[in-house]
Amino acid sequence: MEISRTDLQRLNDNPLYHTVGLRVEEAFDGKARSCLTPNPNVCWPFPGQVHGGILATVMDTTMAWAVFSKLEENLNCTTINLDIQYIHPAKQPPLYCSAETSQYTRRLCFVRSEIRNADGQILAAAQATFRIIRATLDFVSQ
Amino acid sequence: MEISRTDLQRLNDNPLYHTVGLRVEEAFDGKARSCLTPNPNVCWPFPGQVHGGILATVMDTTMAWAVFSKLEENLNCTTINLDIQYIHPAKQPPLYCSAETSQYTRRLCFVRSEIRNADGQILAAAQATFRIIRATLDFVSQ
Amino acid sequence: MEISRTDLQRLNDNPLYHTVGLRVEEAFDGKARSCLTPNPNVCWPFPGQVHGGILATVMDTTMAWAVFSKLEENLNCTTINLDIQYIHPAKQPPLYCSAETSQYTRRLCFVRSEIRNADGQILAAAQATFRIIRATLDFVSQ
Amino acid sequence: MEISRTDLQRLNDNPLYHTVGLRVEEAFDGKARSCLTPNPNVCWPFPGQVHGGILATVMDTTMAWAVFSKLEENLNCTTINLDIQYIHPAKQPPLYCSAETSQYTRRLCFVRSEIRNADGQILAAAQATFRIIRATLDFVSQ
Repeated sequence: MEISRTDLQRLNDNPLYHTVGLRVEEAFDGKARSCLTPNPNVCWPFPGQVHGGILATVMDTTMAWAVFSKLEENLNCTTINLDIQYIHPAKQPPLYCSAETSQYTRRLCFVRSEIRNADGQILAAAQATFRIIRATLDFVSQ
Repeated sequence: MEISRTDLQRLNDNPLYHTVGLRVEEAFDGKARSCLTPNPNVCWPFPGQVHGGILATVMDTTMAWAVFSKLEENLNCTTINLDIQYIHPAKQPPLYCSAETSQYTRRLCFVRSEIRNADGQILAAAQATFRIIRATLDFVSQ
Repeated sequence: MEISRTDLQRLNDNPLYHTVGLRVEEAFDGKARSCLTPNPNVCWPFPGQVHGGILATVMDTTMAWAVFSKLEENLNCTTINLDIQYIHPAKQPPLYCSAETSQYTRRLCFVRSEIRNADGQILAAAQATFRIIRATLDFVSQ
Repeated sequence: MEISRTDLQRLNDNPLYHTVGLRVEEAFDGKARSCLTPNPNVCWPFPGQVHGGILATVMDTTMAWAVFSKLEENLNCTTINLDIQYIHPAKQPPLYCSAETSQYTRRLCFVRSEIRNADGQILAAAQATFRIIRATLDFVSQ
């Protein structure tokens, strides 16, 4: 399914992304990119360092959009499992997340993701499995 | 290290936990328990259902406190990897998280965690590895 | 599906289990137990220590039997993802593996597993997701 | 540490690799490649399809050599955790495994790996964390 700029703009205006500081920038043909300008509230307990669960939120979300970008209109996806490697402390925002689907079967999709800083240093890596389900999200394709 | 009720009370009063709706209730002898009364902002894109990355935040945090409760005073821990299974949609709060360390080596700690609803149904499960580091957190044992 | 002693006996007489040194001892109501008396060939590169991939084989197999024990006759299962923690070196056999399903949906099953030594010390832990498929294995229930 | 062709030849002549059908072909600068021509004994319970635990053995081993290729002479590595996605059935050998380290810290190394068939189709993906330890393997650099 094609996700237009207007769709993304509407998508990015939601309470979760505002709370975290997340903006999805692109979702196209099984790939997605996002940017995290973290709200100071989610940089705890180490000041200036994004909490690992928030990095999980960013990667899970970006992977979901990578999957979603390849699905037909009446389909959606939900995470079955998520495996994360925390490689370096997530300091010095903004941070950049990319995600790419490696394979679709009819009911499952396998995805990988990374978070890097502005210097291109990898801070976290993830792989996840999504289940493909019948469901329509309101904020897209109205 | 013993974490007193006063320590926990001080601990729970931080911006991340307020943002999410998390309260750590106990951390003792390698085990910890917490409760999530989710802020509506983190229940997105499905209304009333906690986002998977927020469940990751809850389990990562609760596991960290399980580890921390067994460390000496000048030590702390940081997550190396986190693996999560999303078993059922996380609806009908409050949700309850428990964590238990399975093994300590000198530099590593292995932990498991679960999130259940009030009926005791398991919604998510996790296992994680933490690295033990030298660092003191301000809000404990002053 | 009930797996009788005769089924198990027939099951255990296969080339993979002989190669590894594995014997499934019980598979009942979503739980399974197995015993590994490792072939010296799979204790490499550290003499007397079972290779981590062989521990993965043991846990994956034991979890599959835990799943299988709860399925109807014309169903089988296949691993989607497998996450392993290597906690202590796997020395001093025999080793004991247990597995337990935590939840079934119609198409997926979530499982956990552990390997312990004779003293009960935990050596490895795993969690896995299985997909439930239509397929019959020859060696059971003929 | 440089691993010469002679080292690799000696390395490949060991009981585990013979049992499985594995040959490491290259290990250089944090990357490694191997080839699996599976012994029929490890293709069970589905004839002609490599067991998932054996794929774990192949990826764990190839990742270890990727790590090892960057370590100094008196250091070695051991797997802490291993996460695997099983994407497609592992049929039609030979299969090809590649591994690449994404990041070293002083005590840990993060690695990713894939198994593909001759057509380049991805069959399995993994990410793992290794601990770096002091230990010398006999079969290298004598």
